[in-house]
Amino acid sequence: MHMYDILNKKRMGLALTRDEIAFFVRGHTSGEIPDYQASALLMAICIHGMSDEETASLTLAMAHSGDTADLSHIPGVKADKHSTGGVGDKTTLIVAPLAAACGVTVAKMSGRGLGYTGGTIDKLESIPGFSTQQTPERFARIAGETGLCIVGQSGNLAPADKKLYALRDVTATVESIPLIASSIMSKKLAGGSDCIVLDVKTGNGAFMKTLKDSISLAQTMVAIGTHAGKKTAALITDMNRPLGMAVGNALEVEEACRVLKGEGPDDLRTISIELAAMMVFLAGKAVSMEDARASVQEKLEDGSALKKFREWIASQGGDPSVIENPELLPHAKVSRRVCADRPGWIDSIDTQGVGRSSVLLGAGRETKSSRLDYGAGIRFYRKLGDWVDEGDVLAEVFAPDEQSASEGAQVLRRAICIGQVRAEIPPLFYAMITENKNSNRQNCILYTENGMKEL
Amino acid sequence: MHMYDILNKKRMGLALTRDEIAFFVRGHTSGEIPDYQASALLMAICIHGMSDEETASLTLAMAHSGDTADLSHIPGVKADKHSTGGVGDKTTLIVAPLAAACGVTVAKMSGRGLGYTGGTIDKLESIPGFSTQQTPERFARIAGETGLCIVGQSGNLAPADKKLYALRDVTATVESIPLIASSIMSKKLAGGSDCIVLDVKTGNGAFMKTLKDSISLAQTMVAIGTHAGKKTAALITDMNRPLGMAVGNALEVEEACRVLKGEGPDDLRTISIELAAMMVFLAGKAVSMEDARASVQEKLEDGSALKKFREWIASQGGDPSVIENPELLPHAKVSRRVCADRPGWIDSIDTQGVGRSSVLLGAGRETKSSRLDYGAGIRFYRKLGDWVDEGDVLAEVFAPDEQSASEGAQVLRRAICIGQVRAEIPPLFYAMITENKNSNRQNCILYTENGMKEL
Repeated sequence: MHMYDILNKKRMGLALTRDEIAFFVRGHTSGEIPDYQASALLMAICIHGMSDEETASLTLAMAHSGDTADLSHIPGVKADKHSTGGVGDKTTLIVAPLAAACGVTVAKMSGRGLGYTGGTIDKLESIPGFSTQQTPERFARIAGETGLCIVGQSGNLAPADKKLYALRDVTATVESIPLIASSIMSKKLAGGSDCIVLDVKTGNGAFMKTLKDSISLAQTMVAIGTHAGKKTAALITDMNRPLGMAVGNALEVEEACRVLKGEGPDDLRTISIELAAMMVFLAGKAVSMEDARASVQEKLEDGSALKKFREWIASQGGDPSVIENPELLPHAKVSRRVCADRPGWIDSIDTQGVGRSSVLLGAGRETKSSRLDYGAGIRFYRKLGDWVDEGDVLAEVFAPDEQSASEGAQVLRRAICIGQVRAEIPPLFYAMITENKNSNRQNCILYTENGMKEL
Repeated sequence: MHMYDILNKKRMGLALTRDEIAFFVRGHTSGEIPDYQASALLMAICIHGMSDEETASLTLAMAHSGDTADLSHIPGVKADKHSTGGVGDKTTLIVAPLAAACGVTVAKMSGRGLGYTGGTIDKLESIPGFSTQQTPERFARIAGETGLCIVGQSGNLAPADKKLYALRDVTATVESIPLIASSIMSKKLAGGSDCIVLDVKTGNGAFMKTLKDSISLAQTMVAIGTHAGKKTAALITDMNRPLGMAVGNALEVEEACRVLKGEGPDDLRTISIELAAMMVFLAGKAVSMEDARASVQEKLEDGSALKKFREWIASQGGDPSVIENPELLPHAKVSRRVCADRPGWIDSIDTQGVGRSSVLLGAGRETKSSRLDYGAGIRFYRKLGDWVDEGDVLAEVFAPDEQSASEGAQVLRRAICIGQVRAEIPPLFYAMITENKNSNRQNCILYTENGMKEL
């Protein structure tokens, strides 16, 4: 087999075989196939696309290019959850204990944030004492005992994806649904769970800006997971505003605690319940989504999810008293208020701008080596659709120093648009993609004002 | 300007500006733009194509990436000639003295052969004493005095093309008409002549296998030349059989001498006259193609072309007595006859197979570092369309040793197909592409059985 022939085939728009894709992934990861051949193939894939079979082959080849987690010795059905990334998205902190409280095992690896979206590992590490580095033995023991353990990604997880992603990043070949889907799913498959719930964000703060692209990405990922024998489903959720009222690592932990205590913002609670219900349903702990939702709701209301959260923090070495005493979480030195300069309705939020502000404040990473201030971030006092008078406090920013606070506040102020007409608030949910057990096709259920509608 | 943005644009199929193309060519040649970005762009160009403006910009940027020949101090109108490469194509050896005898100055650089098609420089160097390395001063003096000088390409001629071609060769991005056209034309433009005549071969022994692709390549190259202010025209000629009856460096020099002496095969003489006439016409030494053909014919018949050839060989240090005494040319040690194994008509010739045979015999290069035997090659005794009896000698092969002779003979035998039906002989000429002085469009004149017809 020759890389030249593979390139020639894809240049002409023909589909590659599983063996050809495996040959490429193996050769590029080992360094035998040089970057200049890999980037030419990536460009051809970007332009011509890939069939579902090709995408599945690429994902599996990348998933098996390095370490894979074997969760078979951990009891129970294991479910993973992945978000394509959003501003203020702390759902994993809420969803994982909710699902675990319903009897689902959540034994997963997670990533750090990069760019303007936060990472679960960073959030967890803002809890004093919490360790995201565990030996495989301890990881299995914690997951077995509490039904819940989240650690950082191993350095050798899907190394093929790591190498290809770095190349895509400098050759303008990131924007390809088969490549995005296979990159995400290769890490999920290597993670070893039985069920995978995907939260695909859509909107001005998401990687996918349009609903069409978001649905297409979700469908491709669900097809990959199903092909690999995993129960897989996806939700398309809104990212035309930050999720919840807090952005920043410790601030988001605090907000997650509030939701688990039965408080907290509606949007965050509603999305967290839906995602947890999907995990419960896929894991076979409920006979329907309705049943799953009811279960999750019950575990939230009766305090068992909060109990699970507490247990989990303690098992990974963290201090669970942050739940009652949020002042034990890291706090930034400087704060500054962002106020309305005119009266009106908050008619849109440039969510990407909010993300950029959080990076300037020290809550997110510009580059892999950037240092975070766990206490930095934004606390919103008003949300999309609210009326504000001139001088009303819209939000408060937290930063390690005056300059960062000032820069972050400026960018944040520009991201919040105040208009004279009350704009329509986008829905929280757009669609749900599930596999159809009776056919090879998928179900795409749209969330509408009048309930749910099959597409 | 960023290479990332250029890649992004071309991935989406948008046209690049002149400045963007120049930025890319400059950056890649200097090494600032890495191969993995260049190969991704080449792949995007292969798939999406390039507009005439983009192709012209790429050609000019490559032409100016290194040394360019300044022929302004050499008197007369300078005309260049280029063939896309064929088996047995020794036309330059005949066309150059024919054109020079008509008063056109031929002061050009030429290449060595690679693959199964020969190079003019190799053929010239098979003449004892002939030097293709001349100082710029000597080059100008010879061209000025005899109207004719051909030297090897300078090492720094269009270095951007050299680097990009090497990358295309290993990334399956060779097959793109804009890239092929700009590669050829960048070297022609850097060569500095006023007029450029292109011989685009079509058929089973040519780089372009179909007439459609050959016409498209010719049109693209004529457009580039015209855009750069050069008088440019192209002929599409047949390569479904070797040109003439000899393949191999010294064997081809001998055949060229025979044509200049008024002998030699019809196909070779006819094509040589047409190409020379086109140079004469473009250089303004005739009022029409008919007039140019008559001039060239006259210079062939009255011996002045042969006299010019003799003068030229001597001026570059070669021994002109090879014209009368071809035994002074190098001869291979071993020869072997290839005979018909059955009676029938020679109904097709796998011309690429003939080329491969000549490489095995030592007349062509497998790789850049392969050593040639100037005496090696093939002399045909029968041509396409001839009747042969069993045992008739079809051809004789010449090689440095028994093994090469045997391998070459075997491949050659398989390349000559003997059938029971007399097949139609393909025409020598297919089309002529010229610029139309009255519009931006080109003239495409088809050669038909009943004469010439405008397309």
